Amino acid sequence: MSEVRVHNLSISLDGFATGEGQALEAPFGHAGERLHEWLVGTRFFHAEDNLSGGTQGADNGFAVQHNPGIGAEIMGAGKFGPPGWQDDPDWKGWWGPNPPFHTPTFILTHRPRPSIEMEGGTTYHFLDATPAEAVAQAREAAAGADVRIGGGPTVVRDFLAEGLIDYMHVAQVPILLGRGVRLWDGLESLEQTYTIEPVSTPTGITHLTFTAKR
Amino acid sequence: MSEVRVHNLSISLDGFATGEGQALEAPFGHAGERLHEWLVGTRFFHAEDNLSGGTQGADNGFAVQHNPGIGAEIMGAGKFGPPGWQDDPDWKGWWGPNPPFHTPTFILTHRPRPSIEMEGGTTYHFLDATPAEAVAQAREAAAGADVRIGGGPTVVRDFLAEGLIDYMHVAQVPILLGRGVRLWDGLESLEQTYTIEPVSTPTGITHLTFTAKR
Ligand SMILES: NC(=O)c1ccc[n+]([C@@H]2O[C@H](COP(=O)([O-])OP(=O)(O)OC[C@H]3O[C@@H](n4cnc5c(N)ncnc54)[C@H](OP(=O)(O)O)[C@@H]3O)[C@@H](O)[C@H]2O)c1
Ligand SMILES: NC(=O)c1ccc[n+]([C@@H]2O[C@H](COP(=O)([O-])OP(=O)(O)OC[C@H]3O[C@@H](n4cnc5c(N)ncnc54)[C@H](OP(=O)(O)O)[C@@H]3O)[C@@H](O)[C@H]2O)c1
Repeated sequence: MSEVRVHNLSISLDGFATGEGQALEAPFGHAGERLHEWLVGTRFFHAEDNLSGGTQGADNGFAVQHNPGIGAEIMGAGKFGPPGWQDDPDWKGWWGPNPPFHTPTFILTHRPRPSIEMEGGTTYHFLDATPAEAVAQAREAAAGADVRIGGGPTVVRDFLAEGLIDYMHVAQVPILLGRGVRLWDGLESLEQTYTIEPVSTPTGITHLTFTAKR
Repeated sequence: MSEVRVHNLSISLDGFATGEGQALEAPFGHAGERLHEWLVGTRFFHAEDNLSGGTQGADNGFAVQHNPGIGAEIMGAGKFGPPGWQDDPDWKGWWGPNPPFHTPTFILTHRPRPSIEMEGGTTYHFLDATPAEAVAQAREAAAGADVRIGGGPTVVRDFLAEGLIDYMHVAQVPILLGRGVRLWDGLESLEQTYTIEPVSTPTGITHLTFTAKR
């Protein structure tokens, strides 16, 4: 069966995947760009922006696993736009006319709207459904390929709690945000169902992989 | 000037340095021994118990730094005994007649009692004082040697927040405790005053060293 995967989810040492005060001018709140500097520097990220260059070390080795084999993404309403985007009928995500998903992309929201076809193979579908229903629908859309859970932390946490995730890559950044949305809340004993492997890289990032035990 | 150091402070991935439900039969609450398994296996820990053997890899390389150069320890009331030990006039700590400190050892408590001289060079002093006052007093007792802040998390957090710690070694264990006492609360932007270096070892521990920037 196809897998449900999380990639490049960046958290602070104190476990926050986003800061406080998310807004149009601050997608990650007071965290700014600090959670993703490691990623922005990689060859993977440069290539996504059609740029050459970027680092090719271990960080890139994790980063590049983001796309291959993925046939659909599921994300939360908090990732798709700033608080209140649901009141703007013209909001079409942060990522412009040709978003980096290039697959069917399901946005979990309690205020769904009609699907939007973007350039480059991305179609946004808005879904008010349980995590298990969302996975079933994304899996069908992915036609045998894997499903990526794109975040934010609330959605990843919910899908972990329901045992729906097969593989998760978390990048722990050596900063303390102090406030924001925590990834780890309510996930006691996750190590009983996942093999957890940490690897620190010379940039100071600790990559943690979670592989579901079978 | 002598340094103020933290060693072998073990936390879960979600940041807890002790579990919920601390009691006489459960010094770490529901965490049990899980936070310290990495340490118990080392040659350092075996030697502390007058045993031979134990691992000599990177974990031991961190563990052995605990004692050299230390002339006094400061700990919190929560480390010294289970909740309510203050009501037991005979309580003399968890560690028996010859405790592993072998130096003056200051216990921060709002209910101080007279000092207790133990075997092997440990004397327990009970102190109701600010963190800065406690460091000054421990420094004097250490006679030029370093002062160790022995925990628990509440005390370490308070001393970090006051900028009193020069070096800290934290061992992050790949388990999720879900509840207990967090180390990181209220320490936003700690990376601005410390150089933070993570190193993962083959046992799955990520050792984080914090060195004060000058
Ligand atoms: N660190 C990283 O690598 C990373 C990755 C992705 C995103 N982010 C950041 O994380 C933040 C967003 O994360 P977040 O935790 O605040 O929010 P989120 O996980 O993106 O979305 C949560 C919201 O999605 C909707 N939702 C979730 N499950 C649903 C369900 N089953 N049915 C219907 N609606 C559902 C709800 O919104 P409504 O009730 O409003 O509909 C819920 O409040 C943003 O700042 C984003 O930039 C960080
Ligand atoms: N993970 C590790 O490596 C590690 C290391 C050490 C300990 N531990 C565990 O951590 C737990 C204890 O930690 P904790 O955070 O609960 O407590 P703690 O930090 O040991 O002690 C906090 C208590 O000390 C007293 N105190 C602190 N500062 C004071 C001051 N300035 N003046 C007077 N009294 C002061 C107060 O107690 P009163 O108000 O009651 O007097 C306060 O509640 C235990 O379970 C222990 O086994 C874990």
